[in-house]
Amino acid sequence: MEVFCFPGLEPDKERLVLTGPVVRHIARATRHRALDRVLITDGKGSELEVELVRVLKSRIDARVLARKVGPREPRHRLGIAQAILKGDKLAKVVEGVTELGAAEFIPVWTRRVVGRLSPLRLERLRKVAMAGVESSARSVVPRIAEPVDITGLLSRMRDYERTLVAYEGEQGNGIDGLLAPNGDSVLVVVGPEGGFEDFEVARLRAAGAHCFSLGPRRLRAETAAVVAAALCLHELGDLG
Amino acid sequence: MEVFCFPGLEPDKERLVLTGPVVRHIARATRHRALDRVLITDGKGSELEVELVRVLKSRIDARVLARKVGPREPRHRLGIAQAILKGDKLAKVVEGVTELGAAEFIPVWTRRVVGRLSPLRLERLRKVAMAGVESSARSVVPRIAEPVDITGLLSRMRDYERTLVAYEGEQGNGIDGLLAPNGDSVLVVVGPEGGFEDFEVARLRAAGAHCFSLGPRRLRAETAAVVAAALCLHELGDLG
Repeated sequence: MEVFCFPGLEPDKERLVLTGPVVRHIARATRHRALDRVLITDGKGSELEVELVRVLKSRIDARVLARKVGPREPRHRLGIAQAILKGDKLAKVVEGVTELGAAEFIPVWTRRVVGRLSPLRLERLRKVAMAGVESSARSVVPRIAEPVDITGLLSRMRDYERTLVAYEGEQGNGIDGLLAPNGDSVLVVVGPEGGFEDFEVARLRAAGAHCFSLGPRRLRAETAAVVAAALCLHELGDLG
Repeated sequence: MEVFCFPGLEPDKERLVLTGPVVRHIARATRHRALDRVLITDGKGSELEVELVRVLKSRIDARVLARKVGPREPRHRLGIAQAILKGDKLAKVVEGVTELGAAEFIPVWTRRVVGRLSPLRLERLRKVAMAGVESSARSVVPRIAEPVDITGLLSRMRDYERTLVAYEGEQGNGIDGLLAPNGDSVLVVVGPEGGFEDFEVARLRAAGAHCFSLGPRRLRAETAAVVAAALCLHELGDLG
């Protein structure tokens, strides 16, 4: 069943009135009509199965059939701290890790970052995350955090039980053994196109982060982020 | 050090004469000059470290400093059989799985495939694979096979020790335990945007394929292929 994100959802009501962009999405882009059933999520974990009652141009009335909380969400909280990338690469990363199940995405300024992250681009990342939630049938929209530098990242590490850094200097040491399925949260850090500077990795390590390698082949940053997120969720038992 | 692919390489010579597209790539796109050192691969596993001696418009002379065979190649042979996808999505998959270390890419016609795979597009996939080898510093260009249907795929399964199918109908059963690090080759099969038909999965299973799930969240086919390839290489011990 298709999932639509409606941030204004009041999950306790028996009847829903949908307004705003989601109406056009349901009625035009996906051509749903009265009596169709869809899933509506507030993006914060609530998911309602509804039957559409009236589909108008700017409003949809729906009847709630069933309620669930985060039915397809991972059991563990995965954060991705990704060095800022050029062009639409950051959006590609947000798209991929949202589908996989990330709870938070933190853009990071590192020394070798090329390019800017304007408020407009940040806002676009939030839209990409919402679209990713719909396409992957999730019920939690990952938080797109404000960008931080390495110092800011060190303080954000405290919100996670463990921090892993995908680092090409760590040849031979894969992710095995760094995460236990009974852990509760992990932050995975991925560098920019040119990689981290040594002092950046040293600061992360000194703050308790663990480095691991994704193998001897050079991965583009976009591939590395999606692969690192997938390996974390797999190690935590959330990808099966 | 940068890697360039030169299919005409004669790996036993002491001196190299490079001609063709690779010359423009080395001399113009990456602005290398005499005395620079680069890696040249034939795309079949040989890698030469060379010093550029003369850089001309249509030819480069180089001196061989060292020879290696597949220094960063995975120990296991990974094939990807991917249902044909629309637009440039197939190229995205080839790009990602080439970086990760795939040895072969087999486009597959399934019932729900939308779109065509012209000889031109197939040729473009071969170029994408070659570019992926250079960007990831590999020395083997994955073979881009001619497209097959499910019957053709069944006979291709014989070239691999084990075949895994990423299948959304296999909820709860992840990849764990399906591959052993002492195995030698695996073929991973990924469906089209609309998924496999049940009878297609049944035929693959009857031929000995094992199905596994990538979790309850719906992944776009491009994400699924890259994640499935990464998990296979990780399980085989080739991603650390």
